[in-house]
Amino acid sequence: MAYRIGIVGVTGAVGQELLALMAKRNFPVAELRPLASARSAGSKVTYGGKEWTVQEAKPEAFEGLDFAIFSAGGSISLALAPEAVKRGCIVIDNSSAYRMFPDVPLVIPEINAHHLANHKGIIANPNCSTAIALMGLYPLHQAFGLTRFFASTYQAVSGTGAEAMRELDAQARAWAKGETLAPKVYPHTINFNLIPQVDSFLEDGYTKEEMKMLNEGRKIMDLPGLKVTTTCVRVPVFRAHSIAISAEFERPVDIALARKAISAFPGAELCDDPANKKYPMPLDYAGKEKCGVGRLRKDTLFDNGISLWVSGDQLWKGAALNAIQIAEALHAQGRLARK
Amino acid sequence: MAYRIGIVGVTGAVGQELLALMAKRNFPVAELRPLASARSAGSKVTYGGKEWTVQEAKPEAFEGLDFAIFSAGGSISLALAPEAVKRGCIVIDNSSAYRMFPDVPLVIPEINAHHLANHKGIIANPNCSTAIALMGLYPLHQAFGLTRFFASTYQAVSGTGAEAMRELDAQARAWAKGETLAPKVYPHTINFNLIPQVDSFLEDGYTKEEMKMLNEGRKIMDLPGLKVTTTCVRVPVFRAHSIAISAEFERPVDIALARKAISAFPGAELCDDPANKKYPMPLDYAGKEKCGVGRLRKDTLFDNGISLWVSGDQLWKGAALNAIQIAEALHAQGRLARK
Repeated sequence: MAYRIGIVGVTGAVGQELLALMAKRNFPVAELRPLASARSAGSKVTYGGKEWTVQEAKPEAFEGLDFAIFSAGGSISLALAPEAVKRGCIVIDNSSAYRMFPDVPLVIPEINAHHLANHKGIIANPNCSTAIALMGLYPLHQAFGLTRFFASTYQAVSGTGAEAMRELDAQARAWAKGETLAPKVYPHTINFNLIPQVDSFLEDGYTKEEMKMLNEGRKIMDLPGLKVTTTCVRVPVFRAHSIAISAEFERPVDIALARKAISAFPGAELCDDPANKKYPMPLDYAGKEKCGVGRLRKDTLFDNGISLWVSGDQLWKGAALNAIQIAEALHAQGRLARK
Repeated sequence: MAYRIGIVGVTGAVGQELLALMAKRNFPVAELRPLASARSAGSKVTYGGKEWTVQEAKPEAFEGLDFAIFSAGGSISLALAPEAVKRGCIVIDNSSAYRMFPDVPLVIPEINAHHLANHKGIIANPNCSTAIALMGLYPLHQAFGLTRFFASTYQAVSGTGAEAMRELDAQARAWAKGETLAPKVYPHTINFNLIPQVDSFLEDGYTKEEMKMLNEGRKIMDLPGLKVTTTCVRVPVFRAHSIAISAEFERPVDIALARKAISAFPGAELCDDPANKKYPMPLDYAGKEKCGVGRLRKDTLFDNGISLWVSGDQLWKGAALNAIQIAEALHAQGRLARK
């Protein structure tokens, strides 16, 4: 069994990682159909020792595909995902467009692969910070019963895309030459700075990104009463996100048990040896499939609370890897091939 | 009235800022006695158009001084502050050595200048993250009654000292040349990375730095029942610290009132216009006396809660400026001259 796969946004940062990870994980590919804007159509993508021609992403391009992974932003997903589904092509969507639709499963396979049973053609891939945070929080939820948590994010520029990664790179090089480069992707300089804005602002003063942790966390973990406050901050780091979390649980917590729960969880790697200055850091967790979880300690504010620190590759667990894991889970459940 | 002033650690990052700020604020200086290790003795410091010779910091060096500001680390303060006091010299100590001593006032002049009345010769200058966080929290406490808060810090390398600032600079320059420079000051690379460790670890998994926010916050604001959880993280930023805070209050909160309280507070500048992408950022608050407070919004976890974001110059409000403000407050209270 091998699949005919569309990749929408193949030239972007996530698209490139998708190809690399599919190869690394020996995903069974019968046909790769790279899809992008009309501008990129005709260019070539190498995969599995073969060249595949980039085609324009338009409704007919999805004919005959088993599934497609969309990583080209919300408006492209809104326009084309229904067209793909209409043509019998399952959509795994990296954008935020469909995540909160009641009939769209929002899936992190280590947590809620069972939600895939209810899909109607579109499956949403979660927000990157949420996916990475839950690699630390979900095993603790299983052990102690999560009720609420605070999260402060330290988000890499990869979350904005390849252009933002080039902007940080260019600003850093300009700085070394004693020059300054005006920001284009971000509203402010990101090199040696922090921008406490990720995504756009809502009326209530939160950014959309900050509300994703709450809304997506509730949906993925089936916890409608979960309470969350998040502050999202862009930091001068290339591609792994980190999150400082303080969480409250229903039952009394135990740090030794918490460590065991993290170690046993497939999406997490326990990295928690303060005496030897070992804790997760973005430079160490860029290019790793598992997210690093460390700094585990009893929370000094909540009664049944744990504080922790998580780092994980935004382009991988935060995007491309989770999307492939969704495809793998669908495959394992026998739900991936065209009817 | 002009003072005979000792500066211990005059060659360090904070020492240099002390001189610059004393000049900027026209502090009345009769004699400047720069004090440093024996190694630096004999070198010259220019202040007020005059050259002053650096002397070795030893007990006799404090004879005849009105007051001395110590910025040379805890062990120097422990060894020499009592010697200075014995000689009639008031000590304003930047280290953490005396902060929690019951007979040592720990002072942020905008908050608790009245604690200076009880000093026995040593006055402690607070931890940098605590001082900067309280520029946002204290006016909210006055308005609504603070009960507990979460803080995640984004701490600049200046907090470690001049050598750490040079390390980030050198790592960034090496990176631009395609080279890597092994870390010396920090246990890990800081450029394009995050280090979730500031100061050393305690038995319970917290760092000393993380407990300062709790212990010093309680003492400065006279709130013995205050609950705090902090995660402290070093970020690749040169000299302003930032802190994401979610705080709970006794009384119902109102964001318009919160903004007014921040605007009216002398240590803070309201910088909170998300629609125009205005919020505090470290690049904007390096070299500013006031700390920037923004991202004010009703907290989605606490019932009477506010989330906020503060940036402030670590070397200024986090160290040198607050120390000078303590001297100015003592002067205003008529407590600074030798008896």
